[in-house]
Amino acid sequence: MISDTCFLRACKRKKVDYTPIWLMRQAGRYLPEYQKIRQKMSFLKMCKTPEIAAYVTVLPVKKLNVDAAILFADILLPLEAIAIKFDIGEGQQGPRIHNPVRSVQEAKRLRIGEPEDDLGFVAETIQLVCRELKDRVPLIGFSGAPFTLASYIVEGGHSTNYLKTKGLIYQETQTWHLLMSKLTQLVIKYLKMQIKAGVQAIQIFDSWIGCLSPDDYKRYVLPYSKKVFDSLKECNVPLIHFATGSAGLLELMREAGGDVRGNYLIGIDWRINLDLAWKRIGYDVGIQGNLDPVVLFAPKKEIKRRVKEILDRAANRPGHIFNLGHGVLPGTPVENVIALVDFVHNLSKR
Amino acid sequence: MISDTCFLRACKRKKVDYTPIWLMRQAGRYLPEYQKIRQKMSFLKMCKTPEIAAYVTVLPVKKLNVDAAILFADILLPLEAIAIKFDIGEGQQGPRIHNPVRSVQEAKRLRIGEPEDDLGFVAETIQLVCRELKDRVPLIGFSGAPFTLASYIVEGGHSTNYLKTKGLIYQETQTWHLLMSKLTQLVIKYLKMQIKAGVQAIQIFDSWIGCLSPDDYKRYVLPYSKKVFDSLKECNVPLIHFATGSAGLLELMREAGGDVRGNYLIGIDWRINLDLAWKRIGYDVGIQGNLDPVVLFAPKKEIKRRVKEILDRAANRPGHIFNLGHGVLPGTPVENVIALVDFVHNLSKR
Repeated sequence: MISDTCFLRACKRKKVDYTPIWLMRQAGRYLPEYQKIRQKMSFLKMCKTPEIAAYVTVLPVKKLNVDAAILFADILLPLEAIAIKFDIGEGQQGPRIHNPVRSVQEAKRLRIGEPEDDLGFVAETIQLVCRELKDRVPLIGFSGAPFTLASYIVEGGHSTNYLKTKGLIYQETQTWHLLMSKLTQLVIKYLKMQIKAGVQAIQIFDSWIGCLSPDDYKRYVLPYSKKVFDSLKECNVPLIHFATGSAGLLELMREAGGDVRGNYLIGIDWRINLDLAWKRIGYDVGIQGNLDPVVLFAPKKEIKRRVKEILDRAANRPGHIFNLGHGVLPGTPVENVIALVDFVHNLSKR
Repeated sequence: MISDTCFLRACKRKKVDYTPIWLMRQAGRYLPEYQKIRQKMSFLKMCKTPEIAAYVTVLPVKKLNVDAAILFADILLPLEAIAIKFDIGEGQQGPRIHNPVRSVQEAKRLRIGEPEDDLGFVAETIQLVCRELKDRVPLIGFSGAPFTLASYIVEGGHSTNYLKTKGLIYQETQTWHLLMSKLTQLVIKYLKMQIKAGVQAIQIFDSWIGCLSPDDYKRYVLPYSKKVFDSLKECNVPLIHFATGSAGLLELMREAGGDVRGNYLIGIDWRINLDLAWKRIGYDVGIQGNLDPVVLFAPKKEIKRRVKEILDRAANRPGHIFNLGHGVLPGTPVENVIALVDFVHNLSKR
């Protein structure tokens, strides 16, 4: 049964035979099979073509032997259901928003559509993947958290200092709250659709909250992330709360998801030791992480040493999912990724 | 007497009448007087012209009423004494290194010159500033820490993922250590020259260590930062150890400077609450920070509220220097910077 797979057992902090592992962006840009398709169509076109998206989603399960698949999609896709137009540029440029939202009029104008209509291709991809995977490994669905979506649509793209986003927070606080309320509803609807279509776990990318002071996170972001977790609680699937640069925010992140008993995990990056992070979060919450993605460019011996360090820090406590601290980087040697999965499985055997 | 100024008393954790404040990049790009000169010459040319550098250094003391001046210079200037050629681009591009160091041959070839010869203009600027300031406020000297310099000269400029730097660490560890040893000697010589020329405190910019895992910082960086602090201890001036994104590294930073009793402070950014950070660092070390620079774009009422929050967190403990969590951003309204200094002085009156 799928609920008895290593990944889902670990999410619920049950006993496992070994530590499960999956990798953010495991289906992506470092794989030659992916690159071959990508040469022929845009990233968004790939996301919107269920057969392609499903193929790319399943690929790493066979190739790397990871313990979960993650839907091939983008954190910004839900914006399709709120009439925000965007494209995803090449390389470091990241996404570009065509109609950014920066005024109360623009925020008021946003209408939340039905994900079933505007994002039906996501549900279709999920159904295809589940049919293909059968009960081999679970499928993780995901979305950008309200703050992630808001920061992109206010900035108009990726940002270094988040001047426009923080500007809205500090100067037009009511507009900010209106925008976040709408995005929260959108994220909840979108993720419920994914769960209905068949995903067995969810990751929420609160990716860029590391740019905020703890007070700002608490006042202007946490209530909305919490709303997402609280609303998904009834779905009874594990919810992974991921962020980068969050070493100063861990207790507050836990506050956001803390009411989801037994189904809540926090994903950390590599900028804090896993044992210290877990101690601060509390052992009643699962933890995911925390290898620096750049380590995958190192010799295998070095990768192995670092896998062991992280496993030692996790100390066989129930509820550890191995992962990178952020996505697999372009150019990462595929053989090193395969070796990583192997190291984690072998070194963690109970 | 200069040693009795509010800033130097606070550095030594003595009683003060109010909390002193200075701002990273207080002499820079948001000031019209600075922009006027900058239109006529490059940033590096400004640094290398003592009369100009001195004028720009003193400017914010008069204009903002801050409690310390900081030398107008760049964190990379010491590279001039090790024959690394660079220029400083406009806007977000940052510095560009003409002859990056990525092999053992290139690292071996580096010869450490005499800062007095190659960086005499810095000493001259310091002398001019001290003459101008008299005993009004102290002058802070600074340098990039060995890791900051190394990451720039290995990457060839600013980086997002530090692939080349970490690549060198993981794959050519001995070359890394050779490079760091040389840069450490360079930084020590350069800072001793600054102290001899007259600066009364030093800030060491370990700026980008936030990209490292705690283990990597401990193994590959901390010993060199520690060497810098240990070597400067005999100079008996306050040493401020600054980094961004360091919420997972505070205890290790303290380890780097911990042997410098009574003259060591840690500068934090805004991504962690000051009270929690200070508790972890230990109250026998001073602390500097921690306002988000973006807050200076907010209405004055909001700036005031946030100043109060930080002061409340510092709770009048001896050893707090108010500062931003990183440099003043371009476009920051000057009147808000003036108001900030005023708020800090007034709200912190003992």
